Amino acid sequence: MDLSEALYTTRAMRRVKPDPVPEAVVRQMLDAAIRAPSGGNSQTWRFITITEPGVKSRLGDLYRQAFATLQGTVYKEANERARAAGDEQAARILRSSRWLADHFEEVPLWFFVYTRNDPDGANIFPAVWNLMLAGRGCGIGTCLTTILGHFKPAEVAAVLEVPSERGWELKAAVSAGYPTGRWGTAKRNPVHPIVYAESWGTPVPWTVDEPMWVEPEAYGT
Amino acid sequence: MDLSEALYTTRAMRRVKPDPVPEAVVRQMLDAAIRAPSGGNSQTWRFITITEPGVKSRLGDLYRQAFATLQGTVYKEANERARAAGDEQAARILRSSRWLADHFEEVPLWFFVYTRNDPDGANIFPAVWNLMLAGRGCGIGTCLTTILGHFKPAEVAAVLEVPSERGWELKAAVSAGYPTGRWGTAKRNPVHPIVYAESWGTPVPWTVDEPMWVEPEAYGT
Repeated sequence: MDLSEALYTTRAMRRVKPDPVPEAVVRQMLDAAIRAPSGGNSQTWRFITITEPGVKSRLGDLYRQAFATLQGTVYKEANERARAAGDEQAARILRSSRWLADHFEEVPLWFFVYTRNDPDGANIFPAVWNLMLAGRGCGIGTCLTTILGHFKPAEVAAVLEVPSERGWELKAAVSAGYPTGRWGTAKRNPVHPIVYAESWGTPVPWTVDEPMWVEPEAYGT
Repeated sequence: MDLSEALYTTRAMRRVKPDPVPEAVVRQMLDAAIRAPSGGNSQTWRFITITEPGVKSRLGDLYRQAFATLQGTVYKEANERARAAGDEQAARILRSSRWLADHFEEVPLWFFVYTRNDPDGANIFPAVWNLMLAGRGCGIGTCLTTILGHFKPAEVAAVLEVPSERGWELKAAVSAGYPTGRWGTAKRNPVHPIVYAESWGTPVPWTVDEPMWVEPEAYGT
């Protein structure tokens, strides 16, 4: 797959089929993940692959609790504002996120990602994003979630038998499977208004009015 | 460029030529950056491009102070251990990092990346890494640094006139230019020992003994 196609079309693909992700694809995703840089080449990352129904069931319960906490606190006001404003994109994201929570166990594969000594995430998220881009290259849809690390880290550690004394932190849980929907460029605001030249607020002397990679005519059909 | 080639060969390329990065490449890097996902599609990111010698000089002084602090504190013991052990890779990384500090102003382009409401970095680092991968696709070498955000955030904000009251945080400064060295797959530990199946410490039933993408024979020549 072409790099630009991957960069432009790897977006949250939460709705996936129950078909298993082949082992060769899992290896490819993980082997690409660890090519990412890390401070001093420290490579302090661990990945746990989850496919067993019993484990998924226990994690799924925790995920739904974390999801309810998120929606009832951090996202509460934003959800209400979006509903009042009839914001269709926000409603779509909420429906899709709720689908993932409700169907956690039907997702064929989850990656639980741990790191340590990485408070700002600069070491782990390039690797996580490599994992997801490599998945895209193999036709696998993924979604990066962080709510379990925020709201249920100890409970997840108990399920996954993560040692408590060595400072490992759950930074992401990534869902993975063959998508039910079609690939496409995600909707984003244009780039030039959020780029400044030399100092905050100084506009750059260029604009980008359309995404710089365009889907082929027959794309996704 | 092929996705796998980009994923396997985008590594810290600190030593770059002074030649300017063309505006078309800058736009491509940034337009690819904002295709990354962010929580609730919030897209709370700002990028400042730095090319002016006067601005680089002020930031370069701060960078060298931050670098000295890092080496004298966080990395002090590790550096001494590596020196005592004759660890050549660690010595190479240290020399290369020092080159970047000493030659900050000769790097033709720096991206300073801000975000807010993103304590764990899950929103900003996929975008930063997209920026760097897209750079790789255009032949641009980059290096992700975080020391200014750790050690000199207020001083950088003063130079770049970042408003203090709205919670913007400096998460990364990314150097960019045409590399003096050759591209290649970065040295990493094998992946299978750091992947577990279903629970911490349980080995996966597979190994990856060589990187799953191999450089063409004539690569980089």
